[in-house]
Amino acid sequence: MRIVVDAMGSDDFPVPDVAGGVLAAREMGSTIIFVGDEQRIKAELNKHNTANLKLEVVHAAEVVTMNDKPSVVVKAKPDSSMHVGMNLVKNGQADGFISAGNTGAALAIAMFRSLHRIRGVKRPALSSIVRIGGNTVILLDVGANADCKAEYLVQFAIMGEIYAHKALGLPKPRIGILSNGEEEGKGNDLIRETSGVLKTMPMNFVGNIEPREIFENHADVVVSDGFVGNILIKSLEGATSLLIQRIRTEIGKSPITMLGGALSRPAFRSIRKEIDPNEIGGAPLLGVDGVVIIGHGRSNDVAIKNCVRQAEQAAKAGLIDAIRERLGRNASED
Amino acid sequence: MRIVVDAMGSDDFPVPDVAGGVLAAREMGSTIIFVGDEQRIKAELNKHNTANLKLEVVHAAEVVTMNDKPSVVVKAKPDSSMHVGMNLVKNGQADGFISAGNTGAALAIAMFRSLHRIRGVKRPALSSIVRIGGNTVILLDVGANADCKAEYLVQFAIMGEIYAHKALGLPKPRIGILSNGEEEGKGNDLIRETSGVLKTMPMNFVGNIEPREIFENHADVVVSDGFVGNILIKSLEGATSLLIQRIRTEIGKSPITMLGGALSRPAFRSIRKEIDPNEIGGAPLLGVDGVVIIGHGRSNDVAIKNCVRQAEQAAKAGLIDAIRERLGRNASED
Repeated sequence: MRIVVDAMGSDDFPVPDVAGGVLAAREMGSTIIFVGDEQRIKAELNKHNTANLKLEVVHAAEVVTMNDKPSVVVKAKPDSSMHVGMNLVKNGQADGFISAGNTGAALAIAMFRSLHRIRGVKRPALSSIVRIGGNTVILLDVGANADCKAEYLVQFAIMGEIYAHKALGLPKPRIGILSNGEEEGKGNDLIRETSGVLKTMPMNFVGNIEPREIFENHADVVVSDGFVGNILIKSLEGATSLLIQRIRTEIGKSPITMLGGALSRPAFRSIRKEIDPNEIGGAPLLGVDGVVIIGHGRSNDVAIKNCVRQAEQAAKAGLIDAIRERLGRNASED
Repeated sequence: MRIVVDAMGSDDFPVPDVAGGVLAAREMGSTIIFVGDEQRIKAELNKHNTANLKLEVVHAAEVVTMNDKPSVVVKAKPDSSMHVGMNLVKNGQADGFISAGNTGAALAIAMFRSLHRIRGVKRPALSSIVRIGGNTVILLDVGANADCKAEYLVQFAIMGEIYAHKALGLPKPRIGILSNGEEEGKGNDLIRETSGVLKTMPMNFVGNIEPREIFENHADVVVSDGFVGNILIKSLEGATSLLIQRIRTEIGKSPITMLGGALSRPAFRSIRKEIDPNEIGGAPLLGVDGVVIIGHGRSNDVAIKNCVRQAEQAAKAGLIDAIRERLGRNASED
């Protein structure tokens, strides 16, 4: 497997990006193609023992920053590491692309300039993988499409099902729809219309899923429009980080609670590991014509390696062909 | 002030409901009118020292349960404590109504059977008051209206502003709109359309508020449609309770972390108090023609007392007249 690693992606590029790619090449035997500033990548590679690893470097002159506007960057930076890297997948020179960079920019470049949509897919979706208490849940869309029609959500459900089946190996993924109540009929017009269609389809549709139920192993895939999905993940992140910060502040208020905090540190460490984006890996962009995994900006080397693993799994399992097979049928209506 | 307390509201009715009403009468000198099963209320009152307190009891034969469907209960239980209690406000015999019961049922009874909308209000909203790190934020709508038009959200902003000003005493409340990014232009069509109107209005509109920013004192009132608002508060509650439960489990795994947990208990107690719905009080129903405060089903006596205090503050400040004055102008278009 040949996987492209955007060397200029993470907040601390190219350090974790290159280190993670090296790690992946060493542990998994993958061929890693680093894309970005050739000199910086080579300087970084010199810090690692790269003997016998399959590593390549492709130069790209421009860097997409976290502040770049997606709508601007697609035109303004044709030679960015994202654009050049995705083109390698598009042209059949690589099996997948990973980046810890600007998600909106990656989506825009993939959709409008490089890989484009799979024919038949109405709207590609950004997913988020939540792993908690031993369960893995794929949420989608979490930000690509703020305004959705029921037919988009139906496709998100199908693409999420395919990803859960192909890349995560679940035999019969349970598909739910994010709603404000578990009872049938709850939700807004979009939810009810989408549910009406999903119910009639040959999938394991489990109906409405409340936010709390995401953590309670009720579904493997949870579908929403990109606005609500984004509010959901930002609320979960916000509440979690606020609570952790408050605990830290309160524990710091007296010597006794500080001692207590020190003694209970192993418990917190294990929870922090559980909710650490570095452990969870990246988010697949589903519906574009090539395997693309976007990692967190704060990714470390292990996170980058995990993104490469995800990309390999998806490519090996034939994710793109599977989506094309299921949704390509409607290409004529597209 | 004469405040009606639904004695059959909370999960443990009538125990905390009656105890909280007695507490309010004792501490605040309010006249409390308990509504519900007269015999049970009187039996409960006998457990308290009620000498010199201004307490009244009004009988209501039926009880709205947490499982009752709002659409059914409005017709099926005309003699419920909620219905009878709100009618006392409607008929001018009381200044406000509080209940720790079924929120959807309270909204439906208020809107369709008892108080009705204030003329000119297109859709009443359910609010939620979040108090964290010393800041108070009013979120609305958090569940009354799953599908909204921009004109509803504009009215939610106005009603939230009036509540923050009148009942919470903020001189110039900052009004924000819940969105998936802080930059102008982020959001979905509804958010952008609503923002366009709010910007032109004589209010302190601060634009888009991301979920995380709710806790960072960026706005006093945050507006959303009822579906997204409900997803938001359920996500916050879900993440918080999951994290607390995970901390408890992890701390219980070794004697050392258990000792650590015991020593740091005061820190957790202070956080638990901060996020305890009993400390925060109830949620005002805004836009119905009378002061209605809905408490959490798990309310204890202090929570009930705090709901009574909220109702008194809103009634004293002339909340309903203020809403009528601002929105009543459009009554002809209604």
